[in-house]
Amino acid sequence: MSLKLTILGCHAALPRVNTNPTAQILEIKNKHFLIDCGEGTQVAMRKNKISFAKIQHIFISHLHGDHFFGLVGLISSLRLLNRKKELHIYGPPELENIIGIHFEASQSIIDFPLYFHHTQAIEKDIIYEDDKVEIQTIPLKHRIPTTGFLFKEKEGLRKLNIEAVEKNPEIQTCDYYNIKKGKDFIKENGEVIKNDLLTFSPNKPLSYAFCSDTSFNPEMIPQIHKVDLLYHESTFKQEHADVAHKTGHSTASEAATIAKKAKVERLVLGHFSNRYKELNSLLSEARAVFENVELAEEGKVFTID
Amino acid sequence: MSLKLTILGCHAALPRVNTNPTAQILEIKNKHFLIDCGEGTQVAMRKNKISFAKIQHIFISHLHGDHFFGLVGLISSLRLLNRKKELHIYGPPELENIIGIHFEASQSIIDFPLYFHHTQAIEKDIIYEDDKVEIQTIPLKHRIPTTGFLFKEKEGLRKLNIEAVEKNPEIQTCDYYNIKKGKDFIKENGEVIKNDLLTFSPNKPLSYAFCSDTSFNPEMIPQIHKVDLLYHESTFKQEHADVAHKTGHSTASEAATIAKKAKVERLVLGHFSNRYKELNSLLSEARAVFENVELAEEGKVFTID
Repeated sequence: MSLKLTILGCHAALPRVNTNPTAQILEIKNKHFLIDCGEGTQVAMRKNKISFAKIQHIFISHLHGDHFFGLVGLISSLRLLNRKKELHIYGPPELENIIGIHFEASQSIIDFPLYFHHTQAIEKDIIYEDDKVEIQTIPLKHRIPTTGFLFKEKEGLRKLNIEAVEKNPEIQTCDYYNIKKGKDFIKENGEVIKNDLLTFSPNKPLSYAFCSDTSFNPEMIPQIHKVDLLYHESTFKQEHADVAHKTGHSTASEAATIAKKAKVERLVLGHFSNRYKELNSLLSEARAVFENVELAEEGKVFTID
Repeated sequence: MSLKLTILGCHAALPRVNTNPTAQILEIKNKHFLIDCGEGTQVAMRKNKISFAKIQHIFISHLHGDHFFGLVGLISSLRLLNRKKELHIYGPPELENIIGIHFEASQSIIDFPLYFHHTQAIEKDIIYEDDKVEIQTIPLKHRIPTTGFLFKEKEGLRKLNIEAVEKNPEIQTCDYYNIKKGKDFIKENGEVIKNDLLTFSPNKPLSYAFCSDTSFNPEMIPQIHKVDLLYHESTFKQEHADVAHKTGHSTASEAATIAKKAKVERLVLGHFSNRYKELNSLLSEARAVFENVELAEEGKVFTID
């Protein structure tokens, strides 16, 4: 089991030559999820060798341009690339209309199945679930309705203790699945072999929380408790805390406080204001509160095994 | 007098790492006009050191994404950069609504004066005029309503023949403006000095025609007759003429035929299909018809003095 986060863009506001607005790819359980899609995301995907075809689910946190202005272009490109597979978009309800009128104006038909899933920012919601992953919205506090996203692996099958299994000749290959699911094995003579003698615990399910954009919001803490990786916006330094509070953003130290209180494993800071030429002071301010913290950076990959 | 065209993007369809969809800056009479605005245009402007503040007029040919998906982001950036000056956008009527709903969804107010000027693609129209420049639409033939744009300098003032002027002590500095406007000078004794003895002809006014996207369309020829510079789309090679015709585009040879028949001075080819790894055969095909032709290229500047 592993989780891989590729940062395509981690700066606030407008795109520049070497920095991009928010977009990232989460690989978890062999699925690729695109989170936010600022202008230039499709080019950033190409730069980072992310296959367009692998993206089947796109999550948009809110409708400020630096989080979704690249979406219509990406959908348009998928169309031009003859996509056939379905695409699911999760975001605020207005997004569906915004995308729709572009294609109406260009008299283009999207000829692959495109599904919109409307999010709300009032309370958490399970918006995606398969046999391996569950995805929830995280209500955030920003100037307009905004949600983060919590990606949780489901607990996998138990792992066979091959040595123990092979000691019991009655156990056949066809029994493995039930044993991995946690069932005891019953021998022909009625004797029960307890499952924990035949298996090891599965790997701990991994989890990732994406929280951008938001002001300091302790209400999210129970929901992101002990996640393995937290991406939290830290648009401003402490000296600009007043701007942060006025604009619905967080300081680095506030991001770290959330990480600490939620007892997360690892924190990544992002959504940096373009006013800062160097970001190390954001890192220091956060590290004073929470040790295991790093800065996001375009092209950087964070892996958890 | 001079005219400077900077290519920000000259490829069809989707943006890639080293090529951009259509966008260009025309500098004429100290004014900067942005023509089309594909995704990534604002970053291309930064790369090419084009000041955002200098852009006051944006011309959008049609509503296929590769010609305008960068516009909402650019307007949004101008807003974030505290623009106060007015901005004029010329394009199909639906564009106003498309831009509007983005800002409605983000609950952002555009706090500089933003004016939309709706174009139509049925007949040519003067859409901009000041004392030095006139801009017309050029109706093109594409799959959806599309216009090109014709930029024409107005004839300037005549140039003083300083030597001749100084020979006539009655002529004062305050008379210069009328003389430059073409008036004769009348001496105190009633004697008339003909204007052409006191002045030289002004420089020839320059003109530029932008024609993308369009199928072969001889109807435009009278309107672009003898322009100094013509940018004409040449999406396809001759071997793909059938695709060109089906999709409302031109081949390089068709672009050159338009240039030849319109007796233009210089032709620039652009809007290249992404299917071509090398573009020199497009150039050769055009050159077989019209000698003075070049390929557009991201970052390339075409100057006419």
